[in-house]
Amino acid sequence: MRVGYWARMSKDPTIEAPPGGWRAVLHEVIYEADTVAGKVFDVALFWLIILSVAAVMLESIPAVSAVHAPMLRGVEWVVTLVFTVEYVLRLLCVRRPSRYATSFFGIVDLLAILPTYLSLLVPETRFLLVIRVIRLIRVFRVLKLVRYVNESAVLIRALRASRVKILVFLYAVMMLVVVIGAIMYVVEGESHGFTSIPRSIYWAVVTLTTVGYGDVTPATPLGQMLASIVMIMGYGIIAVPTGIVTAEMTRGMPSSVSTQACSTCSRDGHAPDADYCKFCGTKL
Amino acid sequence: MRVGYWARMSKDPTIEAPPGGWRAVLHEVIYEADTVAGKVFDVALFWLIILSVAAVMLESIPAVSAVHAPMLRGVEWVVTLVFTVEYVLRLLCVRRPSRYATSFFGIVDLLAILPTYLSLLVPETRFLLVIRVIRLIRVFRVLKLVRYVNESAVLIRALRASRVKILVFLYAVMMLVVVIGAIMYVVEGESHGFTSIPRSIYWAVVTLTTVGYGDVTPATPLGQMLASIVMIMGYGIIAVPTGIVTAEMTRGMPSSVSTQACSTCSRDGHAPDADYCKFCGTKL
Amino acid sequence: MRVGYWARMSKDPTIEAPPGGWRAVLHEVIYEADTVAGKVFDVALFWLIILSVAAVMLESIPAVSAVHAPMLRGVEWVVTLVFTVEYVLRLLCVRRPSRYATSFFGIVDLLAILPTYLSLLVPETRFLLVIRVIRLIRVFRVLKLVRYVNESAVLIRALRASRVKILVFLYAVMMLVVVIGAIMYVVEGESHGFTSIPRSIYWAVVTLTTVGYGDVTPATPLGQMLASIVMIMGYGIIAVPTGIVTAEMTRGMPSSVSTQACSTCSRDGHAPDADYCKFCGTKL
Amino acid sequence: MRVGYWARMSKDPTIEAPPGGWRAVLHEVIYEADTVAGKVFDVALFWLIILSVAAVMLESIPAVSAVHAPMLRGVEWVVTLVFTVEYVLRLLCVRRPSRYATSFFGIVDLLAILPTYLSLLVPETRFLLVIRVIRLIRVFRVLKLVRYVNESAVLIRALRASRVKILVFLYAVMMLVVVIGAIMYVVEGESHGFTSIPRSIYWAVVTLTTVGYGDVTPATPLGQMLASIVMIMGYGIIAVPTGIVTAEMTRGMPSSVSTQACSTCSRDGHAPDADYCKFCGTKL
Repeated sequence: MRVGYWARMSKDPTIEAPPGGWRAVLHEVIYEADTVAGKVFDVALFWLIILSVAAVMLESIPAVSAVHAPMLRGVEWVVTLVFTVEYVLRLLCVRRPSRYATSFFGIVDLLAILPTYLSLLVPETRFLLVIRVIRLIRVFRVLKLVRYVNESAVLIRALRASRVKILVFLYAVMMLVVVIGAIMYVVEGESHGFTSIPRSIYWAVVTLTTVGYGDVTPATPLGQMLASIVMIMGYGIIAVPTGIVTAEMTRGMPSSVSTQACSTCSRDGHAPDADYCKFCGTKL
Repeated sequence: MRVGYWARMSKDPTIEAPPGGWRAVLHEVIYEADTVAGKVFDVALFWLIILSVAAVMLESIPAVSAVHAPMLRGVEWVVTLVFTVEYVLRLLCVRRPSRYATSFFGIVDLLAILPTYLSLLVPETRFLLVIRVIRLIRVFRVLKLVRYVNESAVLIRALRASRVKILVFLYAVMMLVVVIGAIMYVVEGESHGFTSIPRSIYWAVVTLTTVGYGDVTPATPLGQMLASIVMIMGYGIIAVPTGIVTAEMTRGMPSSVSTQACSTCSRDGHAPDADYCKFCGTKL
Repeated sequence: MRVGYWARMSKDPTIEAPPGGWRAVLHEVIYEADTVAGKVFDVALFWLIILSVAAVMLESIPAVSAVHAPMLRGVEWVVTLVFTVEYVLRLLCVRRPSRYATSFFGIVDLLAILPTYLSLLVPETRFLLVIRVIRLIRVFRVLKLVRYVNESAVLIRALRASRVKILVFLYAVMMLVVVIGAIMYVVEGESHGFTSIPRSIYWAVVTLTTVGYGDVTPATPLGQMLASIVMIMGYGIIAVPTGIVTAEMTRGMPSSVSTQACSTCSRDGHAPDADYCKFCGTKL
Repeated sequence: MRVGYWARMSKDPTIEAPPGGWRAVLHEVIYEADTVAGKVFDVALFWLIILSVAAVMLESIPAVSAVHAPMLRGVEWVVTLVFTVEYVLRLLCVRRPSRYATSFFGIVDLLAILPTYLSLLVPETRFLLVIRVIRLIRVFRVLKLVRYVNESAVLIRALRASRVKILVFLYAVMMLVVVIGAIMYVVEGESHGFTSIPRSIYWAVVTLTTVGYGDVTPATPLGQMLASIVMIMGYGIIAVPTGIVTAEMTRGMPSSVSTQACSTCSRDGHAPDADYCKFCGTKL
């Protein structure tokens, strides 16, 4: 297991372990989950990320922000300082720090701490707030979702295999939505909320995906008839991506038939749990 | 048939029959549906449960409650008293009453009668009302859905087999919803109903699941464009759980397994074209 | 073709042809589509039904009704008189009129003409209006959808095969909806539109099916959180009926593998268009 | 590759190349993407189409139109003049111009330029605006989506194979929607927004397709109960088109066909395990 893990890990050159010394020990704690210290580090980091995202959310609620703003700022600064220390340690304990710093997770780690420091220089804007939510992406690394990744491989393979089909589908949907939007703009007109073609396209997307907010709705009989046709079309269209993914998934499923052939009668198609050939009774 | 039924029944130790006497007879009536008395008991209990849940519902309608409150309270007390007697009898006629009382259905049976008695001590609150709805769970036992359970086994097996895939999917959806919510909070802002990140996340869930209440909707062109992208994404995402379940179900179909059991090792699950037992090699 | 048609037709004893004479000729025109007269009769009847349903719809629009009421009443009476004549002829030209009159289509044919006559006796009510829409069912017979029925047999077989699974699913959904409705009634309360448990159940159905009108929406943070969970659940639940039907349909598809076995090597699994055995090259 | 391309191209008689000379060279540039000039022409045309559709959209936004109307008119005229030149060149460089002019893409190309010229004669109406959006269809030809068409062939074949099933399904949905609409019109009545049967049918479509705008919603308890039943029905009904398409797609997957062609009869489509050609019996 460990061998396999190292083999996989050593493929990621951005977090390659240094040859030895205290940096190698630190690398073990930060990037591995095999030792007790490594597990404690991961769990602590996980809850810290959740805490910091929860703080960002609570801060955005006016009622909470009015009362608990100082405490939330405190949490924010503590978390940022811990993350900063962690970022520096991560830089120290990889073989090539520059390579880590420019990797995907290196940039995510930097973006997780920058907004708080920037808020000292410039007045905090909403945009800095959102960047802080990016911390959530860090959870993916902490969880080291090895087990889940294996399971979701079928899912990702199915999505990748149907990539081109999905693109063609999306292109057709986009064309459809523009044409439907333009027609409804003419039919319903500005007095019924279809104030421009882009807004009509927004309506078409809302309708075709069966979301149906109801903020823009057809009011004329002709518009309602056209809308009904669009909805029933959407009914059929929603079947297409489902069909694509399902068909790929059914194909991607590990077959329930063993590839082993019988040594006596040379026939295959035996069940994976079979001990004897089902055609001639020979031990497999 | 009866042997199989008893074999299955005896597996549930919480409602094990006592060795004999009047308690064994009572056990037959309450827990079995083989005798006339047992069937009458089950049907009566079924309608009593439906009646009591209907009474709870009607009581919650102000117009009905204002006029028929005394009658509904009467129904409530009659049902509660009958359920109390039934609960005591159930306790009496099982081999180990304490084991039944702490089992899932034992607790459900207790929760079905407690709220009414509690309403004598404390002024009735809405929360007691909901607990009374729990009675509906009792229907599952009364119906003794043996036949249906066999049919729904494929369904449950399909859901269990795709458990991990569904969890990964749910985790990804949760991440997506938080990030989308935070972005829309910044883009649309408080003036358009996106008053906080949690509320924006609520909007993201409403949109991504294609529910689309319309209580929070994007009003700016940029917000509507982002929302359109989210909806079309939701379109594709809805295909994933469907694909997972369908693929598992297609695989889980019992069509390719013979019901024949081996005469030597008594094991079944052989392929329809098998001539020899796959476990011991005996000719079938 | 005609033999097969008669064979199928003679299975329906309610419209059995009389032994001969003018009644047999009339039977040919009314119940068959093989002769020119029969085809003309069917097409005329089809358009008459569409016309009469269109008249009912137009009459329900206040603006149209105010202006064209006399004309629409005229259409109504002409159609009714033609349908009456047709009904009498149908009664005359079957072997056993009483059997036809009590059959499903016999009752539909009667309901198609009764409301107009009843409107002479009692002042026309809305309920009579709806009964007139039932005429639409008659189209099914006129179209004699033989070809389509063959095609939709797979569909109907798939639905019938998954009948029990769908029932268990529907029962589970109903339970879920009642429990969710009761919880939301307590959480949100009357001030936010959840005025009673039945209304909360209505909300739960609207949400779980992803319809999402938005006439009742949660307003409290706790209610919105619970609603989000319900929506994501609904996401997974919608996958179940789709999975059931798709799995049954995939199974019900005529296999693309021929059952023919090779006379030389005795192996099967050949494609339907194969002329030679794919394993040994023998002519099949 | 080129041979295959020409073979395919020559099948479209509307854009057949002339025998030689400058017209053949022009044909190569306009209709092919093999030369540098041909690729530049296609890319330029693609962006011109996108630019012109974007201009139409922007013009429909009152705020943009008020400020940038002259510029957008300028873009419109430049694009139209370029398209006109292109249209004339297309006419010149095909063997039979009249055949091209009356083909589908010939008419689309004409419709792309006509509205702008018509706006000189008649005051510009909204209808001319929509016709200009038709230009988007031209993108399909420019992209020469050869690669994608191959991929989407499975999709289109699946849709075509299930054509009849989908038609029967649509007919059943239409019947259902009319009957449900009529019933709800009677139950809810005009005071709750169900002002006519067509409007009630619109509501039924909005509900059954799970779009759920909320512009028309049932207000009476009976209406809400009926609506709940319709929604749960819609739940099951949405499974049908998905099931149809998925089953067809699973079947249509090209996985079980080898690409090997027979050396004697040159036919392909053999199973991966085939040793002999299934059409002529030659060893593969």
